[in-house]
Amino acid sequence: MINIKSAYLNTRNQFLTLCSNLETEDYSVQPTEFVSPPKWHLAHTTWFFEQFVLKEFSSEYTIYNDDFAYLFNSYYNNAGERVLRPNRGLMTRPTVKEVYAYRNYVDSKMVVFLDSNPSKKALEIIELGINHEQQHQELFYYDIKYIFGNQPTFPTLKNSIALNDITQKQEFITIKEGVYQIGHNTTGFSFDNELGVHKTYLHQFKISNNLTTNAEYIAFIEAGGYSNFNLWHAEGWDFITKNNITAPLYWHKVKDTWHYYTLNGFKPVEPNKPVTHISMYEAYAYAEWKQMRLPTEFEWEIAAEHLNYGQLWEWTNSAYLPYPNFSKAPGALGEYNGKFMINQHVLRGASIATPENHSRKTYRNFFQADMRWLFSGIRLAQ
Amino acid sequence: MINIKSAYLNTRNQFLTLCSNLETEDYSVQPTEFVSPPKWHLAHTTWFFEQFVLKEFSSEYTIYNDDFAYLFNSYYNNAGERVLRPNRGLMTRPTVKEVYAYRNYVDSKMVVFLDSNPSKKALEIIELGINHEQQHQELFYYDIKYIFGNQPTFPTLKNSIALNDITQKQEFITIKEGVYQIGHNTTGFSFDNELGVHKTYLHQFKISNNLTTNAEYIAFIEAGGYSNFNLWHAEGWDFITKNNITAPLYWHKVKDTWHYYTLNGFKPVEPNKPVTHISMYEAYAYAEWKQMRLPTEFEWEIAAEHLNYGQLWEWTNSAYLPYPNFSKAPGALGEYNGKFMINQHVLRGASIATPENHSRKTYRNFFQADMRWLFSGIRLAQ
Amino acid sequence: MINIKSAYLNTRNQFLTLCSNLETEDYSVQPTEFVSPPKWHLAHTTWFFEQFVLKEFSSEYTIYNDDFAYLFNSYYNNAGERVLRPNRGLMTRPTVKEVYAYRNYVDSKMVVFLDSNPSKKALEIIELGINHEQQHQELFYYDIKYIFGNQPTFPTLKNSIALNDITQKQEFITIKEGVYQIGHNTTGFSFDNELGVHKTYLHQFKISNNLTTNAEYIAFIEAGGYSNFNLWHAEGWDFITKNNITAPLYWHKVKDTWHYYTLNGFKPVEPNKPVTHISMYEAYAYAEWKQMRLPTEFEWEIAAEHLNYGQLWEWTNSAYLPYPNFSKAPGALGEYNGKFMINQHVLRGASIATPENHSRKTYRNFFQADMRWLFSGIRLAQ
Amino acid sequence: MINIKSAYLNTRNQFLTLCSNLETEDYSVQPTEFVSPPKWHLAHTTWFFEQFVLKEFSSEYTIYNDDFAYLFNSYYNNAGERVLRPNRGLMTRPTVKEVYAYRNYVDSKMVVFLDSNPSKKALEIIELGINHEQQHQELFYYDIKYIFGNQPTFPTLKNSIALNDITQKQEFITIKEGVYQIGHNTTGFSFDNELGVHKTYLHQFKISNNLTTNAEYIAFIEAGGYSNFNLWHAEGWDFITKNNITAPLYWHKVKDTWHYYTLNGFKPVEPNKPVTHISMYEAYAYAEWKQMRLPTEFEWEIAAEHLNYGQLWEWTNSAYLPYPNFSKAPGALGEYNGKFMINQHVLRGASIATPENHSRKTYRNFFQADMRWLFSGIRLAQ
Ligand SMILES: [Fe+3]
Ligand SMILES: [Fe+3]
Ligand SMILES: [Fe+3]
Ligand SMILES: [Fe+3]
Repeated sequence: MINIKSAYLNTRNQFLTLCSNLETEDYSVQPTEFVSPPKWHLAHTTWFFEQFVLKEFSSEYTIYNDDFAYLFNSYYNNAGERVLRPNRGLMTRPTVKEVYAYRNYVDSKMVVFLDSNPSKKALEIIELGINHEQQHQELFYYDIKYIFGNQPTFPTLKNSIALNDITQKQEFITIKEGVYQIGHNTTGFSFDNELGVHKTYLHQFKISNNLTTNAEYIAFIEAGGYSNFNLWHAEGWDFITKNNITAPLYWHKVKDTWHYYTLNGFKPVEPNKPVTHISMYEAYAYAEWKQMRLPTEFEWEIAAEHLNYGQLWEWTNSAYLPYPNFSKAPGALGEYNGKFMINQHVLRGASIATPENHSRKTYRNFFQADMRWLFSGIRLAQ
Repeated sequence: MINIKSAYLNTRNQFLTLCSNLETEDYSVQPTEFVSPPKWHLAHTTWFFEQFVLKEFSSEYTIYNDDFAYLFNSYYNNAGERVLRPNRGLMTRPTVKEVYAYRNYVDSKMVVFLDSNPSKKALEIIELGINHEQQHQELFYYDIKYIFGNQPTFPTLKNSIALNDITQKQEFITIKEGVYQIGHNTTGFSFDNELGVHKTYLHQFKISNNLTTNAEYIAFIEAGGYSNFNLWHAEGWDFITKNNITAPLYWHKVKDTWHYYTLNGFKPVEPNKPVTHISMYEAYAYAEWKQMRLPTEFEWEIAAEHLNYGQLWEWTNSAYLPYPNFSKAPGALGEYNGKFMINQHVLRGASIATPENHSRKTYRNFFQADMRWLFSGIRLAQ
Repeated sequence: MINIKSAYLNTRNQFLTLCSNLETEDYSVQPTEFVSPPKWHLAHTTWFFEQFVLKEFSSEYTIYNDDFAYLFNSYYNNAGERVLRPNRGLMTRPTVKEVYAYRNYVDSKMVVFLDSNPSKKALEIIELGINHEQQHQELFYYDIKYIFGNQPTFPTLKNSIALNDITQKQEFITIKEGVYQIGHNTTGFSFDNELGVHKTYLHQFKISNNLTTNAEYIAFIEAGGYSNFNLWHAEGWDFITKNNITAPLYWHKVKDTWHYYTLNGFKPVEPNKPVTHISMYEAYAYAEWKQMRLPTEFEWEIAAEHLNYGQLWEWTNSAYLPYPNFSKAPGALGEYNGKFMINQHVLRGASIATPENHSRKTYRNFFQADMRWLFSGIRLAQ
Repeated sequence: MINIKSAYLNTRNQFLTLCSNLETEDYSVQPTEFVSPPKWHLAHTTWFFEQFVLKEFSSEYTIYNDDFAYLFNSYYNNAGERVLRPNRGLMTRPTVKEVYAYRNYVDSKMVVFLDSNPSKKALEIIELGINHEQQHQELFYYDIKYIFGNQPTFPTLKNSIALNDITQKQEFITIKEGVYQIGHNTTGFSFDNELGVHKTYLHQFKISNNLTTNAEYIAFIEAGGYSNFNLWHAEGWDFITKNNITAPLYWHKVKDTWHYYTLNGFKPVEPNKPVTHISMYEAYAYAEWKQMRLPTEFEWEIAAEHLNYGQLWEWTNSAYLPYPNFSKAPGALGEYNGKFMINQHVLRGASIATPENHSRKTYRNFFQADMRWLFSGIRLAQ
């Protein structure tokens, strides 16, 4: 099974590359509840393989450290008995060095296990674990940007990802009315939330080939978009009012010019790059201002092959809900997707932070409407 | 136009009947943010006719009191300049008597106006105003129950509404797969959110003829439903944990027996009545426990003619989103529905608190998932 | 014992006079935690006599209503078992009419009891109850001003109290260094917190004969007093910053002129009246700006006979702490004063809201530093 | 001026010794608002010498890094203009290594300056800076204990401080009534808050020679001290109720035995050591339970020579208020003490965390009543 072993090792090593320019101090902070420290991501993704693979399927496996199982479990509900609960951003111990040792230990055991002709069930969970680690690698980018972008000195992440200019002329593609097939067929990996090929009826619509640019978004700001409540959801208006939001996250006006923090530094906003770090509320208000709308996730999936996508996850106007015949796995792995299917919104596509080969046309990403730290973008429909 | 005049007067008088057993003190309190005092409902529905009908269409109309326009406008966004903002539950003035005088004034002007051959546009807005007032009459029931049900002395509302026992045997009706028509056609009144007859694809499903009863729900409680996190949305689990919720709203355990507050008094829970005052989270968890699910709003609409409904609004597993080609009216009336189309959930049917003739098969009611003070219920699908 | 009976009846009737111009709606609201609704004051002061006098000393007394004992007890700690806790501002029942009936019932029983040659112990508690009711009568003024002064329509209280102009020229009185006697001697009523005549050493000081006027305070505002953090306690600076405080409570700038709400209406600030509705923090900052200080409560007591006082309670720079040999009564009455002796500040004098004969030179009033709804004022010392 | 130079260097080096067993990760976290990360203490105390000594008095001095001046200034009020505000626990940069370089830079400049015959004014500020650094060294102990003591793995600080058993028999010393002298005379260093020798009148009192032990405090717990509201200030009762406090900070019941976290590890509570990490509220309630009281700070100062003290700061029943004729220094240094003189409480003595020679009989330490992370203790008076 040479294929999955190299996929495992590639993914595991990729995380070390992502972290190669961090200082020890950068690994441990948690500036807000939805951000996790890099150290936690490194340990938690390791714990996944220990908990669901080695502990389940490898009879001679010895838990590295009972504390780690407790500290890096994200499924708090069945956590053991302790005097104190872990708080991700306040754990100075184990140290970064100790977490890397934990990774090495689990990796060495996983290599032995992968060489031992694992069962089909085990291989499925390993594949899930690889995809899980890739998701945390994407979150790592969101989180380190938040960690750096909220410090007064704006540190940078050397050799980091950057968006490209949008160079193609904007066009609206027309898709005809009819019954369409939606969802992932059973070849290749997918998450449970995209499973179940099924039919949906779409009415005719048009969809932009490109994402919205910073220049277009600045026009919205300058037209008073953030102070015209008619453009906003009631809840979105409350959100921007209560939080004094007047521009995307990481934007600051310096001497009348919009600047933003990027992982490569603080600089004037670049007009031809796609606008990012906007909430679902802002995406919606922008579309209202353009007298258009956001596509549904079904429209997006059917139109995908005609679209320029992959730089930013695209807010759709679809709530994250189960497909017909959705069923979740038993036990802890069943907590993966189903329990989040309320008050979240589907994003389609992929972003520059997404690991290679991690996304696909049927991939359903999802976040709450007020999240802005992800690499999100806007595509118009009508 | 005798028809709309009598509809107007009937609806307006109906509110007086609803309030006929209140004490003056009951009109003014606001125990929580989502509850409005009865006095506010009485004045706000009056302001609707003053603002959108008389002020717009009746040239000789004189505003009753500029303060009232400011105080009873629920569309805060364009409110005028004042030293202080109104706070619904803390306004002891105008008094109840003054609010009734305001109603009389507006009603007398409306009668004159209705007799003066109003334009089609004006008649449409009056019809909307009547439906608006009916919605507030339903909210009045939710609110007065909350006002009374959270006082230690549990006051009652004389001659009030009550649920009936469910007497029919439970069956599951099967609906075949196919393309179906959804939405309101243009005959008769409807809200903008249900407009636009359009097609949707439904896969085959089964749906219960009856609502879930208190006895069935107590079985869920006694089976530990409120302490098994696997049954809950992650957000629902946080909600019940943070708020120590272990039963529907208004339920209290007294000497090992579940009791509840009803508008007719505090009493042991009646087993054969449909369970109510549960959040969307609880409806979902109950369905999970039964290894079934809630229907979508589209499934409900297609199955409606086969169902026993009308006692309680039924949580569906559909997010409140625009229909294809949804468009909102310009100006303040456009704020009626569209701006709420995020993070809310559709309920279908009607309740014992719904004014006569106010609901229909295509009616889309909607609330946030954590709301429990409405007359909500559970219907299972699979 | 004719004297205490007439004191009892006078005090009880006085509360009816205070409330004679209220509307029913005004009795029940609680706009913020530290404000109690008038209805609650009326019932709570009645409960005091029922609980501590009639129930204790009158063998044939029948509790008027067990609910009332529960609802109007301010000593929550020993409250009985109920399904729900009372929330002062949300109880629409008992009605105002029922509360007045409760007062009548208790008063009629008290008259019989007072005529029955009560024990010395009982008489002492009745005297305490009279003083307790007077304190609540003063609180009534603070509370009704807050209730009216936070409504957009600024209702007035007909025939209400008003401050007088300060007409005497300001002088600073000098008091010599030495050992002085502080505290109440045993003749006449006093609270336990002022008991225990004892010695204190005072260094020489000067104290103003007059209170600070609105004109003087406006000079402080216009000199930027609210934006110069050097004048403020660190905690005071946080308080005004977080709450956007730039003037006394009830002040509003209308077209460049300071106005304020008084119980007699909304009007331009009157320059020669003493400034009121300022927190301890503001009093301190004003004194700092004048390069003076507030007196201690001991300085105040020794200088009192030379001062013009009685319009407003005067913030001193003394924390509310026990006198040497302070001891509290056993049981619930012991909760009266001692348990508040931390993080509160002594005010001396009396105010226009204080019932006649209620205050004296040794009286120790006390509030938290951030309270502004009381009738507080500023006197300088150096 | 060899004396102050060696005092400077000793104090500065002492901080390196305190930190010698920390991991890099331990330097940067801020688990709660009142705790500062060790890195911040190290930089802030350095900034003090840069800002108030080198920048003021050394003409050729070059600021090490403008960012540091902004980041490590605790006097936020006059902070410069930045896009973002520093947040002590979330700054991963500058790194620990960079902060130590900053210390070295400032120390080398200070040595040159100290050798250059500084003015008397400069020497006074250096002496203040040394005492300031000593205060932060004590805070370092409180903070690192909080950082470690709230992690589930309970890390230890090697070679750390520990309390001693109380071995002497308890006695109550009697002090006679009379006029006494309080405050620091002008020989030797003191803070401005203890200056101004003045007279105070003390009534006769008794004071314990010893601090309260853990065994004595456990008796209080076991007698239900934490559930008898009569023993508590109203505010203290709210504090323990809202925060579920049933024992001192760092105490945990494991299998029916009280354990606590100490810097040397998690272990059963040692009965003969003095109880610590109790709030002012708990100290007061304990004294009430013993039917005694806490001494005032004046009683303590007069009795000090008869007392066994120095292990723990002792809560007095005195509010932190200015002495007669207290005056604060102009400018930023004037912010040192005066602005905290409200709602804080005086502690007298010293603790095992206090640097050598830092305390004295007249030293006035002060904290809010709810603070428990300091090394506080209880001494009874009557
Ligand atoms: Fe995960
Ligand atoms: Fe409305
Ligand atoms: Fe009272
Ligand atoms: Fe400092």
